[in-house]
Amino acid sequence: MKMIGIMAVGNELTSGMIQDTNSSFIARELGAEGWGVSGAVLVGDDEAGIARMLRYLMANSDAVIVTGGLGPTVDDITTEAVAKALGRDIFTDAAALAQLKAAFEAFNLAWTENNAKQAMFPAGADIIENTVGTAPGFIVIHDGIPVAVIPGVPREAERMLTDGVITRFRRELGTTGARTVRKTVKTFGLTESALADKLKGLEEAFPQAQIGYYPRFPENHIVITVKGSDAAALDETLSAAARWITERLGKYVFGYDDDTLEGVVAALLTERKLTLAVAESLTGGLITDRLTNVPGSSRFFERGVVVYSNRSKEELLSVPHEVLETKGAVSSEAARLMAEGVRTIAKTDIGVATTGIAGPAGGTAEKPVGLVYVAIADGRTTWCRQFQFRWERRRIKEITAQVAIEFVRRLLVGVDIGDGE
Amino acid sequence: MKMIGIMAVGNELTSGMIQDTNSSFIARELGAEGWGVSGAVLVGDDEAGIARMLRYLMANSDAVIVTGGLGPTVDDITTEAVAKALGRDIFTDAAALAQLKAAFEAFNLAWTENNAKQAMFPAGADIIENTVGTAPGFIVIHDGIPVAVIPGVPREAERMLTDGVITRFRRELGTTGARTVRKTVKTFGLTESALADKLKGLEEAFPQAQIGYYPRFPENHIVITVKGSDAAALDETLSAAARWITERLGKYVFGYDDDTLEGVVAALLTERKLTLAVAESLTGGLITDRLTNVPGSSRFFERGVVVYSNRSKEELLSVPHEVLETKGAVSSEAARLMAEGVRTIAKTDIGVATTGIAGPAGGTAEKPVGLVYVAIADGRTTWCRQFQFRWERRRIKEITAQVAIEFVRRLLVGVDIGDGE
Repeated sequence: MKMIGIMAVGNELTSGMIQDTNSSFIARELGAEGWGVSGAVLVGDDEAGIARMLRYLMANSDAVIVTGGLGPTVDDITTEAVAKALGRDIFTDAAALAQLKAAFEAFNLAWTENNAKQAMFPAGADIIENTVGTAPGFIVIHDGIPVAVIPGVPREAERMLTDGVITRFRRELGTTGARTVRKTVKTFGLTESALADKLKGLEEAFPQAQIGYYPRFPENHIVITVKGSDAAALDETLSAAARWITERLGKYVFGYDDDTLEGVVAALLTERKLTLAVAESLTGGLITDRLTNVPGSSRFFERGVVVYSNRSKEELLSVPHEVLETKGAVSSEAARLMAEGVRTIAKTDIGVATTGIAGPAGGTAEKPVGLVYVAIADGRTTWCRQFQFRWERRRIKEITAQVAIEFVRRLLVGVDIGDGE
Repeated sequence: MKMIGIMAVGNELTSGMIQDTNSSFIARELGAEGWGVSGAVLVGDDEAGIARMLRYLMANSDAVIVTGGLGPTVDDITTEAVAKALGRDIFTDAAALAQLKAAFEAFNLAWTENNAKQAMFPAGADIIENTVGTAPGFIVIHDGIPVAVIPGVPREAERMLTDGVITRFRRELGTTGARTVRKTVKTFGLTESALADKLKGLEEAFPQAQIGYYPRFPENHIVITVKGSDAAALDETLSAAARWITERLGKYVFGYDDDTLEGVVAALLTERKLTLAVAESLTGGLITDRLTNVPGSSRFFERGVVVYSNRSKEELLSVPHEVLETKGAVSSEAARLMAEGVRTIAKTDIGVATTGIAGPAGGTAEKPVGLVYVAIADGRTTWCRQFQFRWERRRIKEITAQVAIEFVRRLLVGVDIGDGE
């Protein structure tokens, strides 16, 4: 397997001020091409350090990708450092310089001489155009090792990797045709160990696949990875393994790959021309925020109410004062009446509601922090379930919103929600 | 300055499946001790690769920290790789093994022999106890270079770094007493270049400080970094520079360090015993979600309504049907009436409202995607401002929610919001 070294340059990275995300993006893209990562390194804005690490990576890799340090300021020294490491001079590319000046003019920015730096490259470099920013990137082939240098701005790095670097690397490294492909099965409602238990035999059934478990609170994702050169066979293995997993996990699987729970629910509601209204106490608007992230959500989402006060529960949802007095706002009675109330008042097909104690304060012996009720009403039946979550405030909100949206999905696909009345 | 190398081990990191966050945490902690980072690297679960990179880092650093690959499974090979790189044998530590077995018993987990691996260490290693997980860490001093190895689970890595590694490194590397401290000034409403323009002269006024600009959409953060050994002097410089910045930026500064905009607003409302109600169309619940992330938000937050349909705007906010017909739901008239309506109906001191076109569909020539109105009403005056944002749906929601919460802050601290009527 061809192994590629990745180096991200910048003091903001080595000081921990900024989290480098380019390297993992690049690693994923390289993996898809069937190439591995020999090492991914962060180095500060230090010419000698960059040059030394570059030589190390070149000695241990078939190619190297460097990101960052191509801007106009004095601490942008990647080009100089790379030139020094390779023992090459630096030249100004007239065409790149003209293009740079034109871009400044187009954006009505004042040209300052320090920007000319961005048109300088090590001798022998092939320039990679930057269609989404100012600094171009470049590739130098040195002792047979291609070294690609692209900007650190993630949007620019991603574009230039895909448009410029990978194409060129294919030519230089040759394509074995070997690829790594992945499929993600997204689940909610089972712990990682319960998942592993239900999936016993998966590795044996698909020995050519590698299985990874990735908790993405509050979801658990299962990633199937296969490598090979026959694209159709790889796809077939991924599909078969995903089917195998889905059959064993049943209702706990809500989607695949780029699916989101709210996206799946939005598609189901839209397809069936059903409407939804939401009454949130504990989740405070998180459910409707997630639902309205889906483009076109106005087709199914009628309204939401965030009923933090008891008065708002009475006024907006017609929850009787006596229920709030005797059972409390955090009770299955209140949750049911909230779901039914928002559905009736909004005249929607489905109403969903949350109430609970998010903490850190406000808990009692009978109603501790993390006590949560989620209810859903469809006009015939109202379901309500009680939960006792641990974790802190934000996570309690997150898992409760997830449960509420999952209840809508379960209602729509016709699987068990819990006790209905 | 003592320079430390960081190595994070794991195929899940080099494949880009998981984003490594340990290295930036470690970098920040080392910085606080006055140490620098010679390089931070990710390497896969490959014994030779780990050993080679470790030797490289040791040759170019005063100490090395390795995270990950200490678990019980076959791909956890960090201990073997480190032992091999240092030419040391591996031994089983009886006390660590007994403790491991006891932990399994305490958690009612079945002991399997592969777990014994977690009690094995390179000869001469000092064991670092793991108080939050199973695998202990260790430190080996080799040719005068301390090499610390700790687990990859972030919670465990953070605890063991602070409890075990840093203390030991202080002893081995010596403390110069030099520390790096930072203060963040958080701003909203100015572009990075407008900020830089307003802060001209800052570097000259505080030559001992390093200034960094960090866009954190939709906010811009300014980080002041100072290094030295006199804690009082460092604090004084940080405070003076933060004051200098705040004086020049005025209303654009909303907080410092760990402050959040919603937290600042929550504190102001609570302190003044004022109440708030929110009417959201475009933002879909994001404003109330952020406000209710603040513990104790029920003290000031009465209710929110997410009025996605026109009917809900009429029913819940008393926005007249004719206004929605003639001016449209996305209009300054509608926004004003929404803010006033939610305030009146909820009987709160302040009402705030958003409406707009989030896209990607739904835009027209007169009302394009990104057209947004934010209004705030306090019973005497209603302010409304129109915006035309670019970016995609989620970012339009995010910046609009930020504007709405910022309007509340500006109202409370008595600075200009925009045109009021």
